[in-house]
Amino acid sequence: MRKKESSKKEDFFQDLKKLVGWECKVKLNDGSIIKGIIMERPKIFEDKILVIKLDNGYNIGISVNKIRKIEKVRKYEIKHKIIKKEQETGGKKVSIIGVGGTIASRVDYRTGGVYAGYSVEDLIERFPKLSELAVYKTKQIMNVMSEDIYPKLYIKIAKEVYKEVIDEDNYGIIITHGTDTMHFTSSMLSFLIQNLNKPIVLTGAQRSTDRPSTDAYLNLLTSVYVALYNIAEVGICMHGSSSDLFSYFHRGTRVRKMHTSRRDAFRSINDKPLLKVYPNGKVEEINENIKRRSGSEPILYDKIEERVAMVYSYPGINREIIDFFIDKGYRGIVLVGTGLGHFPVTFKENSVLDALIRAYEEKIVTVMTSQTLYGRVHPYVYTNLRKLSIKAKVVYLEDMLPEVAYTKLMWVLGNFDFEEARKIMLKNIVGEISPKSLYF
Amino acid sequence: MRKKESSKKEDFFQDLKKLVGWECKVKLNDGSIIKGIIMERPKIFEDKILVIKLDNGYNIGISVNKIRKIEKVRKYEIKHKIIKKEQETGGKKVSIIGVGGTIASRVDYRTGGVYAGYSVEDLIERFPKLSELAVYKTKQIMNVMSEDIYPKLYIKIAKEVYKEVIDEDNYGIIITHGTDTMHFTSSMLSFLIQNLNKPIVLTGAQRSTDRPSTDAYLNLLTSVYVALYNIAEVGICMHGSSSDLFSYFHRGTRVRKMHTSRRDAFRSINDKPLLKVYPNGKVEEINENIKRRSGSEPILYDKIEERVAMVYSYPGINREIIDFFIDKGYRGIVLVGTGLGHFPVTFKENSVLDALIRAYEEKIVTVMTSQTLYGRVHPYVYTNLRKLSIKAKVVYLEDMLPEVAYTKLMWVLGNFDFEEARKIMLKNIVGEISPKSLYF
Repeated sequence: MRKKESSKKEDFFQDLKKLVGWECKVKLNDGSIIKGIIMERPKIFEDKILVIKLDNGYNIGISVNKIRKIEKVRKYEIKHKIIKKEQETGGKKVSIIGVGGTIASRVDYRTGGVYAGYSVEDLIERFPKLSELAVYKTKQIMNVMSEDIYPKLYIKIAKEVYKEVIDEDNYGIIITHGTDTMHFTSSMLSFLIQNLNKPIVLTGAQRSTDRPSTDAYLNLLTSVYVALYNIAEVGICMHGSSSDLFSYFHRGTRVRKMHTSRRDAFRSINDKPLLKVYPNGKVEEINENIKRRSGSEPILYDKIEERVAMVYSYPGINREIIDFFIDKGYRGIVLVGTGLGHFPVTFKENSVLDALIRAYEEKIVTVMTSQTLYGRVHPYVYTNLRKLSIKAKVVYLEDMLPEVAYTKLMWVLGNFDFEEARKIMLKNIVGEISPKSLYF
Repeated sequence: MRKKESSKKEDFFQDLKKLVGWECKVKLNDGSIIKGIIMERPKIFEDKILVIKLDNGYNIGISVNKIRKIEKVRKYEIKHKIIKKEQETGGKKVSIIGVGGTIASRVDYRTGGVYAGYSVEDLIERFPKLSELAVYKTKQIMNVMSEDIYPKLYIKIAKEVYKEVIDEDNYGIIITHGTDTMHFTSSMLSFLIQNLNKPIVLTGAQRSTDRPSTDAYLNLLTSVYVALYNIAEVGICMHGSSSDLFSYFHRGTRVRKMHTSRRDAFRSINDKPLLKVYPNGKVEEINENIKRRSGSEPILYDKIEERVAMVYSYPGINREIIDFFIDKGYRGIVLVGTGLGHFPVTFKENSVLDALIRAYEEKIVTVMTSQTLYGRVHPYVYTNLRKLSIKAKVVYLEDMLPEVAYTKLMWVLGNFDFEEARKIMLKNIVGEISPKSLYF
């Protein structure tokens, strides 16, 4: 009996190996059923644990002893097929530019990881309803996960997008992009392509496109509606709630990823979203300040200053980090202070004041934002703030987000001299600063 | 006529100078009335602009030509008086430790700035109702604005607070503290004073205590209620809404300042606040997981590792900044990544991967949190994450806030060796990590 039991178990493990890459129903001794893709097990788990990738993307391990039965559902396979690049539906033309990210990703069933694999064409093919709404012109200009984007790529993206913007055939532009730094890119493009006459819509996905739970479809669908709408802004169109009810179109200089994994991770900060867009095509304007389509001539800026740093304040910081960036030849530093825009300035243990005075003397533009994200920095309320704003000439950027300050400073320093740059940082160019009521 | 006009004007300016430091009603030609404190004018404005500090803390300048009449209300004065340190009201004893911050600040009417000036005694004297609730033992251990706090001060604060905690006479402890880095301190104290048997309540103010609009009173009042409540946690008690309706008591390792200026700037993140506290003394428990008063013996840790850095990811970052901290002899680095815990790792232009591998080889603990603040990092979902977690052995800190990771890493590295430290970073010590449902 014992012998037989053991040999049965061996067979079972052999069978398990053959199941790798299959979607299965795994029935447990306690009666529960788990559905997912059987993964190759790490060596350490061999013969003890079965690893299953769930629909929600998590891998779970189940002790083999707890398994009663495994039922195959289907072999997990990824289709490869390229559709025609220009379909004729009689509709308006929308240009879709692929940059990469989760929306262009699929699950690697061998590792359980997610990798970039879908082209823009694959996406449209996958969601046939999109073809009823417009004619798509697609171009995959790179396939990069957004955490890997570096400043030079912004120029490449801006040039490609600009080509589509000035093509009169295109009614709107969609960019599929990773979500992690999508708000950096939306802000950067807001400064690099100005005087806009049609919408530039960035979208992506929090769950990869080949998962049943993907948010890619609603995001793409609502992005097409925005691309066809009477608006001429750069923005991000993503889920507005955790279910598939609607998306928000956020202004590109007012939005930030505020959750690691939720579908509605993107939030407008210090401003309202521009549009609320429903899957049936209904569009609600929820911001009274919307730039419309026009006959204006878009301008491309194709220069940025890459030597711009972001420095967050924390209690153990000191002047060394500022000196480091000065010594490395950086031309701009975005300070992300606490509260109203503070860095330590009083005690020699951690004061950054002298280093910031040195930065000004060396014609490095230093600007201040807040790590609270919400609210407005202020250069005068406290004595410590005055030291930074008056002695070190740090430019206090009102209610501008840190990430927006970073991209704006790269643009400004790429195109204007030191004194001009300091002034333009405080001028509202594309909605990145809200006016406050003032007596003078 | 012209002569007389001019001489009248001269008198008017002389009069203006005498008004500095007075609260006045300024009537304008257009009929509007502005109330505030007349400030000394910067040289540049002399004879042209009158500067008035409004109740909301802003200074406004008004062209002198627009002023019809100025009416004195009262001379703006600050009272100095020290009350008895130990009143006998028959109530329970609450120890109040003053660290500094806006709650201990007053407006400098000459500059319009705010400076530290109130002691804890002044505060209690200012709000006589507090004396009806408890007997206060007060100690001003420093008077530092919280942006200036540096790690050594944490040890000083912890030792002073610990003395009060183990004094059996004290029913609860209140710490008055600046708001900017209050959440760093609340988290640090959570790790430095463990096995707690009574509450430690940090509170402060967003508007200085001598302003009519100050939030200091409700914050102090509700902090006293928490200090008297059946709870044994370190936390922050501050306004829960922008009006004076109630406060929240947030767990010290779950809270962050999320607005530059609102009274309800503090928010619990990835967890519910612990208590909702009303000005009439009513307390609602809104978190099911609350540690109660007990007879346990509190433990003081009086060592931390100060050489811990925080590094935020952004598209222009590269390995240099990691190398900088390694070269400087840092023992820990808190990485604040994008999304699920990403830093650039793929392209040589900005990859930090090799530098993080070097950090591990040099026995520097690197940990990962997310700049989205909300949500949970994950070491495996994407190929890039695996490079960081598997190749560079970065410890992914679940749903721990970046600021909490920073203080925890200082505590851990001050008390445990490299391998232990890496393990303890992932162990929930004082509510800083939430469990997630797992099959094994």
